[in-house]
This record gives sequence, C-alpha cells and structure tokens, in this order.
Amino acid sequence: MSAPNGVRVLLDAFLSGKRAALARAMSIVEDSRPECDELLAALHSRFGRGRRIGITGPPGAGKSTLTTLLVKQFREQGLQVGIVAVDPTSPFTGGALLGDRVRMESVALDPGVFIRSMATRGSLGGLAGTTRELCDVLDAFGMDRILIETVGVGQSELEITQTADQSVVVLVPESGDSIQTMKAGLMEIADIFVVNKADRPGADRVKSDIEVMLGLRGGHALGGDPAHHGVDLKNLRRIANPGKAARNAMANPEAAAWTPAVIQSIGTTGQGVSDLASALERHFAYLERSGTLAVRRRTRLRQRVVDVVEERVRRRLWMDAPTNAWLDGQMPKVESGEATPFAIADALLARSGSLLTGDRR
Amino acid sequence: MSAPNGVRVLLDAFLSGKRAALARAMSIVEDSRPECDELLAALHSRFGRGRRIGITGPPGAGKSTLTTLLVKQFREQGLQVGIVAVDPTSPFTGGALLGDRVRMESVALDPGVFIRSMATRGSLGGLAGTTRELCDVLDAFGMDRILIETVGVGQSELEITQTADQSVVVLVPESGDSIQTMKAGLMEIADIFVVNKADRPGADRVKSDIEVMLGLRGGHALGGDPAHHGVDLKNLRRIANPGKAARNAMANPEAAAWTPAVIQSIGTTGQGVSDLASALERHFAYLERSGTLAVRRRTRLRQRVVDVVEERVRRRLWMDAPTNAWLDGQMPKVESGEATPFAIADALLARSGSLLTGDRR
Repeated sequence: MSAPNGVRVLLDAFLSGKRAALARAMSIVEDSRPECDELLAALHSRFGRGRRIGITGPPGAGKSTLTTLLVKQFREQGLQVGIVAVDPTSPFTGGALLGDRVRMESVALDPGVFIRSMATRGSLGGLAGTTRELCDVLDAFGMDRILIETVGVGQSELEITQTADQSVVVLVPESGDSIQTMKAGLMEIADIFVVNKADRPGADRVKSDIEVMLGLRGGHALGGDPAHHGVDLKNLRRIANPGKAARNAMANPEAAAWTPAVIQSIGTTGQGVSDLASALERHFAYLERSGTLAVRRRTRLRQRVVDVVEERVRRRLWMDAPTNAWLDGQMPKVESGEATPFAIADALLARSGSLLTGDRR
Repeated sequence: MSAPNGVRVLLDAFLSGKRAALARAMSIVEDSRPECDELLAALHSRFGRGRRIGITGPPGAGKSTLTTLLVKQFREQGLQVGIVAVDPTSPFTGGALLGDRVRMESVALDPGVFIRSMATRGSLGGLAGTTRELCDVLDAFGMDRILIETVGVGQSELEITQTADQSVVVLVPESGDSIQTMKAGLMEIADIFVVNKADRPGADRVKSDIEVMLGLRGGHALGGDPAHHGVDLKNLRRIANPGKAARNAMANPEAAAWTPAVIQSIGTTGQGVSDLASALERHFAYLERSGTLAVRRRTRLRQRVVDVVEERVRRRLWMDAPTNAWLDGQMPKVESGEATPFAIADALLARSGSLLTGDRR
C-alpha cells in the first residue's frame, strides 16, 4: 500500500469482487490507516444498497446464535451477508465473547458471508465511526444485508443504532425484572424485540411486559396490578412516546407509525427466526414507504460529514508540532493559576486560522 | 443567575463556604449552563489541593459500601469529603444503583460530606469532562478528599482514571474467572486492588491471581499449573508491564516503581477499610515523591485545554446558522455520490476561518 497507486490497485481487486481485497479494505478502515479517506471517497458513490441491521442486547442473550441463524435464512434467499461484530470490551465484561465467535464459525466458511470482529477498547466515538465505515465498505462490496452485532454495555448500542437502518433488541426471559430500568433507552432503540430462549420460564411475561410498554396492551388486559409486573406503565408510556412520535413525524406524518414487533425465539432449535426475518422485511417496507429510510440515511450521512470535520480539526491541531510546542509553553501559566484553560484555548484558536482552514499544512 | 453579576454573587457565597452555593455551582457545571466557563475560570486558581480517588469495579462489588466506610475514616481524621457518583447507565444494567445510593445516605447528612450523583446517559466524552469539572468544583470548595465512584462498564473507567490521582479497583471472589479477560485493562487502571466480600469462598485465590498478574508471585509459588488458575501468566505479564513501566519512567526513573497493593475487605463488617485508607496514604506519598503526581496533574490540565478547544470548535461551527445552512445545501450532492463527505468537510473548514478563530461570533 506504500506505492502511490496502492489504493487504485486495491480498488480494482475490490470492485471485481475479490474477498482478499475486501479484507484488506476493512483493515485499512478499521485501523484508520492514511489511505482510509482516499479509499472511502472512491467507494462513496457505491454506498446505500445494502440493508444495515443492528442486533444488540445484554451479554448472554444469544445474539451470536440468532445472528448466525438469520444469516442462514438470508443465504437461502441467495443474499450476500456481511457481519460486523463489535465488542466494546470492558475489563469487567466480555468473558463469553470468544465462545460466541466460535459459534459463528458455522457460517464463516460460506463464501457469501464476510465476518469482521472488532474487540475495540478506547474512544467510543472512534468505535461508532469505524463501525459505520466498515458497513460502508461491506455495502460498497455488494453485501445485501449487513448485520451489526454489539453487546449492550453503555452508550454503544445507541451509537450503533445510529449506524443501522433497522435495530433488533434481543432479550431473554431473565430480562423481565430489568425492563423497567431499560424503558426509555430500549424504546428509542428497538424496531423489533426478540425474546430469545423462549423455552425458559417467564418468556410470556417478558413479551407481554414489552407489549404493555409499547402500548399494545393495557395494564388491565394483563389482569392485575401493573406494579406486579415490575413496570411503571404511566411513566414508561410518557417517556416512550415522544421519541417515537417525533421520529415518525420527521419522516412522513401521513404514514402509519411503525409498531415494534415482539417475537419469541429459541436459538437452539431455530424457532422464531423466520418470524424475525419476516418482521425485518415488513419493517424495511415501512421504512421505504414512510420516507423514514431516506431520513435515517440522510441524517447518517450528514453526521458523517460532521465527524470528518471534527476529525480533521483534531488532526490539524494536535498533529501540528508548533501548536503543541506553543501549548506546552503555556502550561506553566495554567498550572500556576495565572491563566485559565479557557483563555489558553481561545488564544490557541485565535492563532490557528490558516491551520484549521487547511491553507497551511 | 440571569443578572450580569450572578456568577459573582454565587462565587462570594461559594468562597465563604456556603453549601447551597456549592450545590448550585455543581448543577451549573453538570448541566454545562452558559455561566459554567466563567465559574470554572474564576475558581481555576483554587484547584489542586484535594486528592482525587477513583473507585471502580463491576456492578455488585460493593463499591458504594466501601466508599461510605472510607468516607467515615476520612471524617474521623477531620477531613472534608466530596463524592461524585457516576452511573453510566446502560439500558441493560443499572438495576441496583438506587439501592447503592440509599446505602450511602448514612454519610449524606454529615455536613463535612457532599455527594453528587449523576445518572448520565449520552455522550461519553461529556461524561468524563463533566466529572473532571465537578471534581474541580469540590476541590475549589476545599474538599480534602474527592471520591469518584463509577461502575465499570465500557470505557468509562479508563476515562475516570484519567480524572483521578489514585485509582482503586474493587473486585469480589466471583471475579476470579474473569481476571484473565480483564488483564491489561485492569493493569492500566489500578493503583490499589480491593477484593471485597472476602468472607466468601475464592477470595484468597482471587488475591493470589492478582498478585501473580502483578508479578508479585511466580506461577510456581501457586503450587500448580498456571492454566489451572484461569490466568495466562506469560501473556498477562507481557501486556501488563510496558504500560506501568512507561508511566513510571515518564515521572522519575530514579523513584522505585509503585507496586499495586492488593487488599481484602468485608464491607459488611468494615474489615480491611483501614488497610485501604493506609494504602491510599502510602500511594499518595509515592505519587508525590516520584513526581508522578505532578505528571498526572499536568497531563490532566493539558487535556483540559485540548477539550475546551475542541468544545469551542464544535460550538462555533455547529451552532452557526449559516454554516448549517451551507452544509444542508451540500447534502444532496453527498447523497447522490457526486461529492464525498471528505471533500465537503474540507470545503466547510476552508470557509470557516474567522468563525473558528473567534474573529466572527
């Protein structure tokens, strides 16, 4: 890649469908190598054909198994599938991840499937940015479905949602008690809920709790005191509705709003996976019909420009030796209390005009 | 606060030690209200006296109980204590948090203690920034010890570590199996390890696993096959050492390196808490003696300036109506593939010189 036409050679192989070139392009983007921008710019006009499906949920919910089963369904339809598995590893979580990946091996040898697993640690912004761009590369390669699988820990699942066209939240019967704590967050994220491991006790209750939360069932229909179900109905509805309503209104007020599907599945037997596949199909038809797809993609693309601008600013400022030397020279004043970080920041920006606009590089 | 001298009035009350003024200042900073910069600038020369102690660990490790006990120790020494409890709430975690806060109530009524609890959801960068600045406010108010308690989920604990002078990682006997997955992350973070709930089975093994990981014990001394302990010794040492070594070398190569203390505690009886307090004391003495404290604080302050610069850039660009209108006007070209996000980003920066330098506002 050090040759001046390295990207061009790679692109030729990529565009003629060589998997080795796809793998190499993915690595360039994942590692943010210098040729990354050139590569993405060259592929830019080929984005937007694949459907991006986010799959998130707590550790141990069976996301990888479901993803694998879903991939098999897509493959039976003759679709090409790309998978980005994101593990925002915490020092305190992440034990089962290796096992998950091993389970996914059953589809990894299929030439119509490409899997990239990222065990990322570090800046979260970087994680989301890279994920989005990895999806772009898979999209440009011609993948019909792009699955983004991520463990729901911290803010990551929200960011991944911003990356996907459709988002699936996978829960298990044991999630029942925490549905109240999840409430608003989940409502913002999920287009489709899957209650996996539905052969375990509590699966029906979790499903009906979610339906109550979505306003699909009254608390009364549940036949009891709502508090008994561990869900604060009034509060949940109040929190849940504005986001959805606003999102739908933004797209097309005429279109009927999407009501998240709630599906039960059993990963070990494959039960419910075809329900999930058809719910994804129905939801995608809604996205197109309502104009929501166009809005989501426009929003994502605009955010991409914003991110590139901020990345450029950071690179131009903090990789500039004179600027760093100047800042180092100011630090004793900041440490002594003589100058504030705010004053130094203003002075730094005041002297960085041509650096920021790109006139001096 | 709408009066032009609102901050001045607040500062007078703050500097004369009024708790209501402290609470108000904390809220201004937490919510990033407009007067936030002015307030922090006015307090800037008063930072740097309190010791900042980060306490992190998995959910359910007993961090709040330990924090409460530690606060009581500090209070017996006549020290003023501030606490910032950060909960980076995930939709999938966070169930026990309320209970933790209630437990902390036993010190909350003490006038020498100030607690601010943040259940933050959203941008992680914002979380770390605000935490650091809340600590600054507590520091300026005259708190001798500032405890930052955070659940270890995702990247947050690393960022909190950058905020603290000293970092305590709380584990439990059940953490044993996951020590291998934690390895490098924990090594970077912890100045002191606490194995809490040490009356449960496995506490001694977790302690010795940590000591092996730290190179305090050979695998041989454990009397068995290292694999038997679920810890890949060679790999752990390789990963663990460079970071520590580099950090120490940065400070003062002459000073003996700090070897993390490993303490056992029982939150319910208070056993081990005085060990923790004296380990913190020994570690702080090391920080001062070795010059590491000065390095950590200088690094933190420089990062603060960098953050303020980037925040100013974001505000100047994205709160500027003409810039947003211009970007909106470019989006159709980006959507059609006619222009790339990179080209538009460059063009945006090229036209934003006076905006970024602050000449036009």
